[in-house]
Amino acid sequence: MTGSGSSVFSPGEPRVTGSDRHLLCRLLDSLGKPPVRVALWSGEVVCDSPDAVATVRIRDRRTLWGLLVNPNLVFGDAYAAGRIEVDGDLLTCLEAIFEVMPLQTDSAWYTRLIHRVAHHRANTLTGSRANIHQHYYIGNDFYRLWLDDELAYTCAYYTSPDETLENAQLEKMRHVCRKLQLKPGERVVEAGCGWGALARYMARHYGVKVRAYNISEQQIRYARERAKAEGLEDSVEYIEDDYRNITGHYDAFVSIGMLEHVGSENYQTLGRVVDGCLTRNGRGLIHSVGRSRPEPMGDWIENRIFPGSYVPALSEMLQVVEPWGFSVLDVENLRLHYALTLLHWLERFDAARDQISGMYDDRFIRAWRLYLAGCSASFATGWLQLFQVLFAHPRNNNLPWTRAHLYMT
Amino acid sequence: MTGSGSSVFSPGEPRVTGSDRHLLCRLLDSLGKPPVRVALWSGEVVCDSPDAVATVRIRDRRTLWGLLVNPNLVFGDAYAAGRIEVDGDLLTCLEAIFEVMPLQTDSAWYTRLIHRVAHHRANTLTGSRANIHQHYYIGNDFYRLWLDDELAYTCAYYTSPDETLENAQLEKMRHVCRKLQLKPGERVVEAGCGWGALARYMARHYGVKVRAYNISEQQIRYARERAKAEGLEDSVEYIEDDYRNITGHYDAFVSIGMLEHVGSENYQTLGRVVDGCLTRNGRGLIHSVGRSRPEPMGDWIENRIFPGSYVPALSEMLQVVEPWGFSVLDVENLRLHYALTLLHWLERFDAARDQISGMYDDRFIRAWRLYLAGCSASFATGWLQLFQVLFAHPRNNNLPWTRAHLYMT
Repeated sequence: MTGSGSSVFSPGEPRVTGSDRHLLCRLLDSLGKPPVRVALWSGEVVCDSPDAVATVRIRDRRTLWGLLVNPNLVFGDAYAAGRIEVDGDLLTCLEAIFEVMPLQTDSAWYTRLIHRVAHHRANTLTGSRANIHQHYYIGNDFYRLWLDDELAYTCAYYTSPDETLENAQLEKMRHVCRKLQLKPGERVVEAGCGWGALARYMARHYGVKVRAYNISEQQIRYARERAKAEGLEDSVEYIEDDYRNITGHYDAFVSIGMLEHVGSENYQTLGRVVDGCLTRNGRGLIHSVGRSRPEPMGDWIENRIFPGSYVPALSEMLQVVEPWGFSVLDVENLRLHYALTLLHWLERFDAARDQISGMYDDRFIRAWRLYLAGCSASFATGWLQLFQVLFAHPRNNNLPWTRAHLYMT
Repeated sequence: MTGSGSSVFSPGEPRVTGSDRHLLCRLLDSLGKPPVRVALWSGEVVCDSPDAVATVRIRDRRTLWGLLVNPNLVFGDAYAAGRIEVDGDLLTCLEAIFEVMPLQTDSAWYTRLIHRVAHHRANTLTGSRANIHQHYYIGNDFYRLWLDDELAYTCAYYTSPDETLENAQLEKMRHVCRKLQLKPGERVVEAGCGWGALARYMARHYGVKVRAYNISEQQIRYARERAKAEGLEDSVEYIEDDYRNITGHYDAFVSIGMLEHVGSENYQTLGRVVDGCLTRNGRGLIHSVGRSRPEPMGDWIENRIFPGSYVPALSEMLQVVEPWGFSVLDVENLRLHYALTLLHWLERFDAARDQISGMYDDRFIRAWRLYLAGCSASFATGWLQLFQVLFAHPRNNNLPWTRAHLYMT
């Protein structure tokens, strides 16, 4: 049960007891006995694994006991604070853990209780603004360091796994436009446009008029400047407003990576907006992180990274379209594409480490690396999915006969 | 409101009254004022439409009043009995009606009540056998007259709309096999195999071993004979049993057009069977008629054509896969392909009319034509959908990188 002790004793920490070791072993059992070595604050390795891919160091007793109460939140916070460290590659370590963790989270009653009472930030009109502000206030300069040139902050589409991130983001936009069958002169509305890359792409390559909504003032400002610089200001209109305030009639509705911020309590509202703005031959596409079954969010991601977020199962996503009678035409799962996108982001983040260190403290950087690596590992091991759902009015027969057109070069 | 009267008076029927006319107009209003002419038993045309595509003749007052209580069941029964007739093309007439009918069935309370108390045939192990017997007892000779050579009695896949039915059924099987990524030597289980065409195709073209289940004794007998004649008896095993009794472990699970007979109350049971029989790298495909939102069955189809059947919305289909944590990889809607398949069946049915007349009475033939034309019109006008749902274990990463392989020639 106990491995070779070392002399790395955290100063001020009490001696490791039998209860500490017992609790750690129970924790590792409940995680499916991942192939990682765990060292406690004394340096003592508990429950060593012969095929360990990394060593996780727990620096104090408070962290160990906290992991038992709320493993998800405490691991994230302690890792960010340096009270948990990983010797070895963080992504490899997380993939090894996620690969064996039981996919059905049958968490203890106190964990579920803690999750329930944890501060859920409601997605009212002002709540959404605060939630989005928390993640994107960080500023364009930060994201520019590790996103692609177009600042696409959503899953890319790699026609092959060795494609570059830059190309894969362009391919994603092309894939979406082909699915939507955009035709010159059509009107498109985009809900949650980020820094506006897709809107510009649609206008430039498909000759459509786009109105793109976003509640992040910084992103909208960037998007407007860039559209102007690229001579697209007549065909793309960026509107700083909530998706609930969309007006007008459109031939296509598109939303890439916004649904995660909408909250399941608002899916019917979003559906009503889509129903109200799409013409009879209109098409819609919603692209969102998903799950293989309905499940609560991880506390750390929900509280520290994306407040107010919720990741739906496909059946839950359909609550946006089914009540309005839209016909689902196509669902594609791009899970492995998001694992690769996140890996590329993490590599670029690490490459820009010096610049980022000049802007943010170590806790921020550790938290951000954990978020990127943790999400990549989650997509790679089936904890997260990425669904693109294409839909249309059920009586729209003006549809391509097969999906072969998506794959023509 | 009233058109030109004619002298075609049904003998014995009472004179048409103002109430009759009023009720008919109300009925047509509730149907969205379809562009059809309706003539009553006197020959009098009520609510004539300038762009009428056909004339519907209602032969007696009982039928008219019955239509108000349960339009779906009474139309079907009365058409089969010749108490309703259509002058003009039946399919064109039904498409014109379905095209304008409000898609949200907001039926009257008494209609919903009648639907609830209508005899629903439970899909217990013996109930399913009786239900399936009722539709398929008709016999192989009948189906051979108007299905393709392989006797595929499910939606075909047309790579282009001018493809023949024979080819499109082969293309459907190829499309399914490509989605499932079958490899030589793999084991496949099929739930609800009909006359066994897909099982033979998989064994012949993909070198897999297939166990195919079906509770129709006639179909199983035909399938076995044909596999033997084609030298496939070593690779295909047809089992006369219920999907609930599937045993063994398989690399792929496939079910084409069985889910409609399963009943939503058994979706979790079906999911448990799939979960129990698929290996860790296993893939599954379920192909089923669907709807754009959850909705009760039409009484006529449910009671006269497919007892015990239920057509699910996509969110309901997902109840087969989500509780077991399967990851949905791909959903494709082939609605227009089924409209075309059914049109081809109807054309062949009509071409074989003389032979069928020698086997069945006029009521049977009229009911069957209404079923084929009605379903084709339903798919063409968005009342019905056809979903192919591909799924896999959430940790199966042995997946094609994109769907381009489905479209290589």
